[in-house]
Amino acid sequence: MEKEISQAVIRRMPRYYRYLGELLDDGVERISSNDLSNRMCVTASQIRQDLNNFGGFGQQGYGYNVKYLHDEIGKILGLDQTHNIIVIGAGNLGQALANYVKFERLGFRIIALFDVNPALQGMTVRGIKVHMLDELDDFCKENQVDIAALTMPKEKASITASHLVDLGIHAIWNFAHVDLELSQQDVVVENVHLSDSLMQLSYNIVKNQKQK
Amino acid sequence: MEKEISQAVIRRMPRYYRYLGELLDDGVERISSNDLSNRMCVTASQIRQDLNNFGGFGQQGYGYNVKYLHDEIGKILGLDQTHNIIVIGAGNLGQALANYVKFERLGFRIIALFDVNPALQGMTVRGIKVHMLDELDDFCKENQVDIAALTMPKEKASITASHLVDLGIHAIWNFAHVDLELSQQDVVVENVHLSDSLMQLSYNIVKNQKQK
Repeated sequence: MEKEISQAVIRRMPRYYRYLGELLDDGVERISSNDLSNRMCVTASQIRQDLNNFGGFGQQGYGYNVKYLHDEIGKILGLDQTHNIIVIGAGNLGQALANYVKFERLGFRIIALFDVNPALQGMTVRGIKVHMLDELDDFCKENQVDIAALTMPKEKASITASHLVDLGIHAIWNFAHVDLELSQQDVVVENVHLSDSLMQLSYNIVKNQKQK
Repeated sequence: MEKEISQAVIRRMPRYYRYLGELLDDGVERISSNDLSNRMCVTASQIRQDLNNFGGFGQQGYGYNVKYLHDEIGKILGLDQTHNIIVIGAGNLGQALANYVKFERLGFRIIALFDVNPALQGMTVRGIKVHMLDELDDFCKENQVDIAALTMPKEKASITASHLVDLGIHAIWNFAHVDLELSQQDVVVENVHLSDSLMQLSYNIVKNQKQK
């Protein structure tokens, strides 16, 4: 088994991937650890430490090869695979996710939305069909589903998540306002709590007020 | 000036607030540090350390008074103030934010949406009006705006953020796919990168596959 890498490091990897992608788009072929550090506003030593978790990718006196590092980090993040996503909850947030073309470019393909609201039946979002929730079981049998995004009220989130796991979906991207805790060891959950991020913002607003 | 508290601690505070709120709803008046620890799946020592940053709130042999701790953390997070929010970008995501009643209960009041799309002019979302972007300057002069949420394409995000800062808005909640870096010291930015969280999820998917 590989060495356990801290979630703090993992949280920073998508940001590296994003910055390296922008460098690639700008036609930059290599970058020194100092230049990357300035651009990303983290210390060069932090970058070296983070990347050393995966074996390190720099060469003394050369820096980093942008394309190589971008591709390697992409592999670490599983972006060399395609992930099929279904979205449970076809309200504004579910539709917003379906409309993000950016996800598709990263290999995340939203293949269906589900809702209980009959008014949404037959609707499509960017060509992606909204199904009724009672079609979920059949859909999951007939299609490869890798990730379920939950954009539904918190009251139903836990029970829906358990049902999805029973259907064989082992990755949950949870937007409901509750920490999903699933007992199965091989299920991964990523919680996105928008109000938590709003509270962090207001903490920093108050801190600023105090410093004035 | 107060001791600088790490952002890692700040990131955990909204979660404490959320769990304590649930305990309050359940009628729980006090809780031992061990019970809170079990419920939140963090160690009791982590809880004590986190809360000690703010002076600590527990009593040996008593545990925590749920309402008191909830209120105190609320104050730390600035939830004893009302924050007026405008949303720039009235697409699905902007509308999803406007529809979250939860934010209002925390003191975050969305007072207007803005967009450049004339088709949205005059529309309302949960009674909140969509304005055209050219009305932004006047609106900010006539209304107290504390936070601007950016739910617009990344190409326009940086220039819009700078303009908002010029209009006196010192807190940005950024959903655009770019790290906003504003030079003004008294501006706070909270970035929500949905694709970063999706990449963390896929990292954990791949890690699980390897362990099988």
